[in-house]
Amino acid sequence: MDLLSSKALFMPSQEPTNQTTPTVEQVVSFNHPIELACGAVLSSHQLAYETYGKLNSERSNAILICHALSGDQHAAGIDKSGKTGWWDHYIGPGKPIDTNLFFVVCPNNLGSCFGSTGPNTINPETQRVWGADFPSLEVSDWVASQQHLMEHLNINCWAAVVGGSLGGMQAMHWAVHHPNKLKHAIVIASALKLSAQNIAFNEVARRAIQSDNNFKQGQFLEQKTNPDQGLALARMIGHLTYLSDHALGRKFGRLVHSGDIHSAEKEMVEFEVASYLNYQGDKFAGRFDANSYILITKMLDYFDLAANFDADPAVAFRQAQCKFLVISFSSDWRFSPQCSTLIVDALTTANRDVSYLNVDSDQGHDAFLLPNPRYELALLSYLQRVATSLGSHTE
Amino acid sequence: MDLLSSKALFMPSQEPTNQTTPTVEQVVSFNHPIELACGAVLSSHQLAYETYGKLNSERSNAILICHALSGDQHAAGIDKSGKTGWWDHYIGPGKPIDTNLFFVVCPNNLGSCFGSTGPNTINPETQRVWGADFPSLEVSDWVASQQHLMEHLNINCWAAVVGGSLGGMQAMHWAVHHPNKLKHAIVIASALKLSAQNIAFNEVARRAIQSDNNFKQGQFLEQKTNPDQGLALARMIGHLTYLSDHALGRKFGRLVHSGDIHSAEKEMVEFEVASYLNYQGDKFAGRFDANSYILITKMLDYFDLAANFDADPAVAFRQAQCKFLVISFSSDWRFSPQCSTLIVDALTTANRDVSYLNVDSDQGHDAFLLPNPRYELALLSYLQRVATSLGSHTE
Repeated sequence: MDLLSSKALFMPSQEPTNQTTPTVEQVVSFNHPIELACGAVLSSHQLAYETYGKLNSERSNAILICHALSGDQHAAGIDKSGKTGWWDHYIGPGKPIDTNLFFVVCPNNLGSCFGSTGPNTINPETQRVWGADFPSLEVSDWVASQQHLMEHLNINCWAAVVGGSLGGMQAMHWAVHHPNKLKHAIVIASALKLSAQNIAFNEVARRAIQSDNNFKQGQFLEQKTNPDQGLALARMIGHLTYLSDHALGRKFGRLVHSGDIHSAEKEMVEFEVASYLNYQGDKFAGRFDANSYILITKMLDYFDLAANFDADPAVAFRQAQCKFLVISFSSDWRFSPQCSTLIVDALTTANRDVSYLNVDSDQGHDAFLLPNPRYELALLSYLQRVATSLGSHTE
Repeated sequence: MDLLSSKALFMPSQEPTNQTTPTVEQVVSFNHPIELACGAVLSSHQLAYETYGKLNSERSNAILICHALSGDQHAAGIDKSGKTGWWDHYIGPGKPIDTNLFFVVCPNNLGSCFGSTGPNTINPETQRVWGADFPSLEVSDWVASQQHLMEHLNINCWAAVVGGSLGGMQAMHWAVHHPNKLKHAIVIASALKLSAQNIAFNEVARRAIQSDNNFKQGQFLEQKTNPDQGLALARMIGHLTYLSDHALGRKFGRLVHSGDIHSAEKEMVEFEVASYLNYQGDKFAGRFDANSYILITKMLDYFDLAANFDADPAVAFRQAQCKFLVISFSSDWRFSPQCSTLIVDALTTANRDVSYLNVDSDQGHDAFLLPNPRYELALLSYLQRVATSLGSHTE
């Protein structure tokens, strides 16, 4: 085990490339049938994705970014609508995932709702929107469809597969089930499987959606409604549990958004934290598909890396050939440092090459998306070594 | 500060009194107007309550039990319907709150829904059910109405006021605002004020109720509906956060309630933890009033012991004259040991007599209701000393 040291030299940033060019979303259609883990067959499917940086002549510098529950293909840069990517702080020229060195690929995963085939798209068999009839998925299905994308891009081996949370589960699945297809797996704020508490939070979120009168057994798009109250609640529960008590206290404390906490009549008091959370919930309800939320939270619940390996993650990891970087955050209580420690322990037992860093942060699970110098340095220095080992740059 | 020691001698239990006699609910009506903290006036109100044990001739051995968010007057014993009280493990003959020594009083608080005046009762002014029009309440209102009950029972001073969570807030309020009316305050798993995270969880719970189509702006009783889905969700969120990750893991892990996690088709899989939580939510929705839930969670949010004392809890506690026992539980993350430490620090600064015990437990916030030998011993030994100091027993 090669523990990362904060003494690692920070490599000076390269000159940033032109940041003002909007990112371009691409869509690839696969017109051959794929069989899903559940047994259902999709006769065709499409993936929306973005790429950043240039593929080198050896086609060896590609990094796959695996998004989590609510992520999308717009990981970096600014798109034509002016929206900044969800991981833009970490992906770009001179950034930890350096697009001067790497060709970065980020698909919107199957079953999500941002242009890839999912519950909010048309079922070609029926010519009706899938809705709740979209088949259930597992992490293996996401990885299989990412493999199709990989072949489409004519990439034979990822320099690295990188993901946080559910994204880390994809990276581990890649490592165990497709050992020749990646050199490095970077597993951030993730887990070998969800705890009972995590499953329970997902269950409450799903029930919030399903008990919304506008859910219509999942056929809300056909019925031209939207279970936005349920979806907002689901997001509020999620968002709240992705933050730490301390971060919420520091950011909001007991600050009051409206009303007067010092008056006798407090009925109209709304705390800042409540206002913030309501806003986050409502915003999310306007952009995400409720069936996708249910589908993807179930993927999280079902995931168990060791399920087919005698329930022993070390047996699973013995299949892997890549090197691993595992990162956790001290205040993350949904994917706690202990979850990462279990990953590291299993990798060590399996005699795999693993670096592990537990980053001090009070940002909870959300820390994996947020600026943090030590985290940035860890990713950057690790990936600089990966780039060096490739023996060739795009420049 | 007199730290409790686990070496305290466990006093042998007295012979239990007849446990088979059902507890008797009593109701007292106060027909004089009371002005609430919000400025509204209730022309009359009633409190349902239970008592256990016998008041001694000096009327000095009375203990007030303050319930929390979802509690009721049936704290101990078995009622005529066969239901065991919510704190029966701790209250009874020979138990930590020993009814051979103490006269124990437990009211259902104003604004709750088990027989005391609240949103589910009739507004005498309009002869219609109060519903959402019931005035907002603060902890001071609960204490004021408990004072009326105290006078009704002809008790001049409580031997102790005892409560967990919101109950502990009532005990602290008694101590600070009515210093001559109690000898001891026992504050369990409580806080000087809620954190942003706690307020946020309450907000999500309230929104779950209010966004239920059957909530009808709080007039659901008149409209003969019930927002049971929203109320179940609120309870699921609450219940989940009252437990620790570890306790849930120990109890449920990833056990499957129905469906087959090993089959390809996992769509019908329901984990045990999800089944349990759904059951808890549904059961609660059948017994609790949605307006009361909203009202009482807001009381929690508003409570700030130091609000009128220069925001300094030590200044507040300088008003107190009673002795304090503060108890917290190591795995409680909604009312963490740190919250209790802040109470103890403020009491110490105010030079009050305080004993503090942080009990090792993996049961989360719920620990205050559950069997735990160290907790039992702490309560028992403390209250045996209280009984001795009274200088008289009921026997």
